[in-house]
Amino acid sequence: MNQAKPILPEPHLSETEHQRAHFPDGLALDCGAVLAPVDVAYRTYGRLNAGRSNAVLVCHALTGDQYLAERHPLTGRGGWWEAVVGPGRPIDTDRFFVICSNVLGGCMGTTGPRSDMPGEGRPWGTDFPSITIRDMVRAQKLLVEHLGIDRLLAVVGGSMGGMQVLEWAATFPGMVFAAAPIATAPHHSAQNIAFDEVGRAAIHSDPDWRGGRYWEEPGLVPAKGLSVARMVAHITYLSEQALTRKFGRRLRGASALTFLEDVFEVESYLRHQGSTFVRRFDANSYLTITRAMDYFDLAAEHGGDLAAAFRNTRTRFFVASFSSDWLFPTEESRTLVRALNQAAANVSFVEITSDKGHDAFLLDEPEFHAALGGFLRGAAEKLGV
Amino acid sequence: MNQAKPILPEPHLSETEHQRAHFPDGLALDCGAVLAPVDVAYRTYGRLNAGRSNAVLVCHALTGDQYLAERHPLTGRGGWWEAVVGPGRPIDTDRFFVICSNVLGGCMGTTGPRSDMPGEGRPWGTDFPSITIRDMVRAQKLLVEHLGIDRLLAVVGGSMGGMQVLEWAATFPGMVFAAAPIATAPHHSAQNIAFDEVGRAAIHSDPDWRGGRYWEEPGLVPAKGLSVARMVAHITYLSEQALTRKFGRRLRGASALTFLEDVFEVESYLRHQGSTFVRRFDANSYLTITRAMDYFDLAAEHGGDLAAAFRNTRTRFFVASFSSDWLFPTEESRTLVRALNQAAANVSFVEITSDKGHDAFLLDEPEFHAALGGFLRGAAEKLGV
Repeated sequence: MNQAKPILPEPHLSETEHQRAHFPDGLALDCGAVLAPVDVAYRTYGRLNAGRSNAVLVCHALTGDQYLAERHPLTGRGGWWEAVVGPGRPIDTDRFFVICSNVLGGCMGTTGPRSDMPGEGRPWGTDFPSITIRDMVRAQKLLVEHLGIDRLLAVVGGSMGGMQVLEWAATFPGMVFAAAPIATAPHHSAQNIAFDEVGRAAIHSDPDWRGGRYWEEPGLVPAKGLSVARMVAHITYLSEQALTRKFGRRLRGASALTFLEDVFEVESYLRHQGSTFVRRFDANSYLTITRAMDYFDLAAEHGGDLAAAFRNTRTRFFVASFSSDWLFPTEESRTLVRALNQAAANVSFVEITSDKGHDAFLLDEPEFHAALGGFLRGAAEKLGV
Repeated sequence: MNQAKPILPEPHLSETEHQRAHFPDGLALDCGAVLAPVDVAYRTYGRLNAGRSNAVLVCHALTGDQYLAERHPLTGRGGWWEAVVGPGRPIDTDRFFVICSNVLGGCMGTTGPRSDMPGEGRPWGTDFPSITIRDMVRAQKLLVEHLGIDRLLAVVGGSMGGMQVLEWAATFPGMVFAAAPIATAPHHSAQNIAFDEVGRAAIHSDPDWRGGRYWEEPGLVPAKGLSVARMVAHITYLSEQALTRKFGRRLRGASALTFLEDVFEVESYLRHQGSTFVRRFDANSYLTITRAMDYFDLAAEHGGDLAAAFRNTRTRFFVASFSSDWLFPTEESRTLVRALNQAAANVSFVEITSDKGHDAFLLDEPEFHAALGGFLRGAAEKLGV
């Protein structure tokens, strides 16, 4: 039943202490504003070598964060990419120095709508400037330089993380030896934008959003709207086959006909996804970051010519897609690969056969892990790491 | 911007006079309850011949209604299937007597959650019993018999209409000479259920839904929740190609970065779809009817054997799917055709190549229209109509 009590985040997001770098001068954003100061919250795994040449930056997806290979401080669950990052894993922390930072606009310690608006004594909220994927990358660059690293051995990420990888390679090519955009696309499609818009409409429709000023009442969050946004997004992360395998048409309990209770297991699962998400994510961050994804159009940033984004690049690329991913279908990766070929880039491409949908990049996919690991080992050898 | 004033339906749905048949004894429902009385609102087109042998029943989809081939009394727009039904059209009203009724549980004159609850002096609301697709068909059967028709030349419908076609053929085979289930499936998939559940969650989350009792305050409707439900459903009706062709990434106006305004044309379009829908549809009907779709599982009704639903059938079937329909993919129609073949039914199947997605069955698809028209002419000739 849906008339549940409002779900209050616990512990409150802002009560968590995150490891941060502070940049008082901030950043000049694509929208023309200067955002200052900027904090970038991050985690590192493994050790930076003496030559500072073994750093791998991992970029997270829409609802991910910097806790990619350790227990999450809010949820208590394992890191979101423990299948990929760790000792002996494809991104081998015995060999590489792995950096992951919360994106600009996020809610896990990096400056975002929940951060204090300077001089106002209140959070930015919806006054937080509109940001782009390129702005996220600029913030990451501040962090990388702060860590004393001139060039990243690799930048790796899936979904929105893959968009950041592409922006890194296009905007700071000299800093990226190897790039692995995974399960991503060089722009958000009309369908991607449409699904995001449903999520935003759900948040906007929640009276507890209060025009973005829910922070005026301590503990208030637009839990119902954010939960619906998460539910619809979650469907797009799974393939139809994955949903069928997981749930099919299995009923929860009695087969009694009722329209006020959850009847099918898939419904309970989605509701659970929605309600747990609300505990760890900020609604205004969700609005800000989905907008950044929608704006993303790498070709448009280069006069409509995607290949121009990579002209004269010396970065090595590894592009991977998953056969049942309908949010970022293989065809989008092919478009990217064609542009990279046109730019005479060094590129390898693999489509992984999987029925797990978009989320496959986060899951146990041995063929993908072997391919990514091989690519990184090859890059490291080439660079003499 | 989303902080719009609540949209009040105008004219109010209940103020419209619909043509109805009244059944004081009502219906025994699948859930065990008896619903009485039952009104069935309907429209007819063309003339019933002396032998009463030229009747074609058209079943509407989730948000359709009986106004399939004339100006809609609430929206003022043309009928939803004017491309298919009319003089000289595939369902030729010069030749056939076409019947279309609002489904049980609907909000255009047939008994549903908005109807008076007998003896209570208030609408049924969420006390309206859970109904099934088979219950909808039982109500249609009352109407068909009321019109003095023993056997339908054909039962035709797309999407949820196609589910009703299948129930007609399975439940009352002697009354159905020909059946045309279009862009449909013999059951709702986990993904279908999941999308429906997002829509229901959005309605439940709207405080103006008031636990289903919004009718207590005149003019109040859960407009925001119902609008979000319509938005997400609408995405599933279109293919990615159709969205891209219609809107691509076109910006609405200035390219200024903002996250409070609609930026992309596809967003405005979706919002418009949502807000106009609220004017013509009842939220509790939406809950009731989506549940009926989710329950639909024809094989489960026949011991898990889909072919058993059609055993010894003498009905002629025409099954059609559309190549870019990802809500009811062609594979679902193939499953149906295999079962019909197993039951030794007379069946023809066509997959129409179209990039218009699920909605193709409503649109200008000449190949589909030619095939459907040919099937109906063939059936009429066979029956000597």
